[in-house]
Amino acid sequence: MRELMYEGKAKRVYKTETDGELILSYKDDATAFNGQKKEVFQGKGRFNNLITAHVFEALTKVGIRHHFIETLNDTEQKVYQTEIIPLEVVVRNQASYTLEKRLGIKEGTAFDPPLVEWFYKNDALNDPLINDQHAQLLMDVNSVELSFIKEAALKINAALIDFFKQINVKLIDFKIEFGRLLNGDIILSDEISPDTCRLVDLTTDEHLDKDVFRQGTGDILTVYQKILTRLEELS
Amino acid sequence: MRELMYEGKAKRVYKTETDGELILSYKDDATAFNGQKKEVFQGKGRFNNLITAHVFEALTKVGIRHHFIETLNDTEQKVYQTEIIPLEVVVRNQASYTLEKRLGIKEGTAFDPPLVEWFYKNDALNDPLINDQHAQLLMDVNSVELSFIKEAALKINAALIDFFKQINVKLIDFKIEFGRLLNGDIILSDEISPDTCRLVDLTTDEHLDKDVFRQGTGDILTVYQKILTRLEELS
Ligand SMILES: Nc1ncnc2c1ncn2[C@@H]1O[C@H](COP(=O)(O)OP(=O)(O)O)[C@@H](O)[C@H]1O
Ligand SMILES: Nc1ncnc2c1ncn2[C@@H]1O[C@H](COP(=O)(O)OP(=O)(O)O)[C@@H](O)[C@H]1O
Ligand SMILES: [Mg+2]
Ligand SMILES: [Mg+2]
Repeated sequence: MRELMYEGKAKRVYKTETDGELILSYKDDATAFNGQKKEVFQGKGRFNNLITAHVFEALTKVGIRHHFIETLNDTEQKVYQTEIIPLEVVVRNQASYTLEKRLGIKEGTAFDPPLVEWFYKNDALNDPLINDQHAQLLMDVNSVELSFIKEAALKINAALIDFFKQINVKLIDFKIEFGRLLNGDIILSDEISPDTCRLVDLTTDEHLDKDVFRQGTGDILTVYQKILTRLEELS
Repeated sequence: MRELMYEGKAKRVYKTETDGELILSYKDDATAFNGQKKEVFQGKGRFNNLITAHVFEALTKVGIRHHFIETLNDTEQKVYQTEIIPLEVVVRNQASYTLEKRLGIKEGTAFDPPLVEWFYKNDALNDPLINDQHAQLLMDVNSVELSFIKEAALKINAALIDFFKQINVKLIDFKIEFGRLLNGDIILSDEISPDTCRLVDLTTDEHLDKDVFRQGTGDILTVYQKILTRLEELS
């Protein structure tokens, strides 16, 4: 019997028999606007599980460390356990409508260098934007580690841009999380999927990500399937 | 006849006969929550005009550059014209209830070093918090200048703490604005008053600032008068 450690909005986390390893079980729930909008899409968990596996395997090839070990089945993957730093690291290559609403920077504006933002991962506070000093006050992270995380995020961004270009997709922005291994090393954790990236078809400009659910402009299962199919054809 | 250049929430700005000099005319209006709460308090403009003059004169003595030239009358002062950088620079020695609400850091928590935050001065966007990269995207300021502004803000904070201690007042936090002279130099501008500082009586813990208006806990004219009286007794 597996012990449920934590149930989040998108995944369940289980202990395994091996110390330092966990199972992430991807759920079919879609949530948006900090859980205010919610729906279940049968098959979504499978898409995110398999897509995340493809992405982490691609990151391995370019030498980026992460928590992913292996795919166990359609909806589950084995990962190294980390102590998650409650920092949502957002990297933007281009302004989304949410950034336009927040800062008045026109949607579509390109960022070079990419824009990196920290948000405090805290549902009760609505994941507020924070700066480096806030991060150091709110969580166990120092300024050298924040620089390391920023550099890692930019490297991951460059690798993901190249990776998604191969399936004719432009990476607008994404959110990642980092965690600490027992030895203190900080590595990329959590998921990288159409739930956590803005992905746009390079030919049609169509969103192949959770925005179709957030904005009610398309069918989440159809567009996630497109991403997975293209990734499977790639490998 | 003076030409009105701009009317803000708290001051009118007039041209003078001298290029590069302006008159700031302090109004009696009090606003809070980005103008949602509004009231007129006859005499408030005089308090802020005279208190700001005392503060800028104290900053002169410790070698901090600013825009203030001289007091003209009860509600007006002459200043050097600057091109205001739309950055609200907030320095916090202690967490306020607003910070607790935003980040969950308990009100009263001391910050050492003081916490410095940037907000984008933009009423339509509700003055959102921003980071260094946002500032460089949103306004004409580079990263060296942002470091200079942060250092200046911390020096001003240290000077203000000492200054207010002399009138038995603790400086919780404050907001300042910087502007650029024609030669490019960045100097402290705008006002430093009970409208823009959180000031607490060291003996009674009573707020002697705009919080009495924001929270409806006291009479703004009475507490601003206290600050002015103590400053006049000091000099
Ligand atoms: N390698 C890991 N070790 C431990 N926890 C992890 C790891 N990777 C991700 N997590 C955490 O798993 C939890 C479940 O994911 P999710 O359902 O997305 O949760 P949430 O709703 O908090 O975002 C999250 O708290 C996430 O940070
Ligand atoms: N030295 C200066 N030169 C030019 N403008 C200034 C100077 N000092 C302050 N200001 C500007 O004067 C305007 C009027 O002040 P205020 O009523 O507080 O306006 P606001 O409602 O925009 O905060 C503000 O835009 C402020 O930035
Ligand atoms: Mg999550
Ligand atoms: Mg103002």
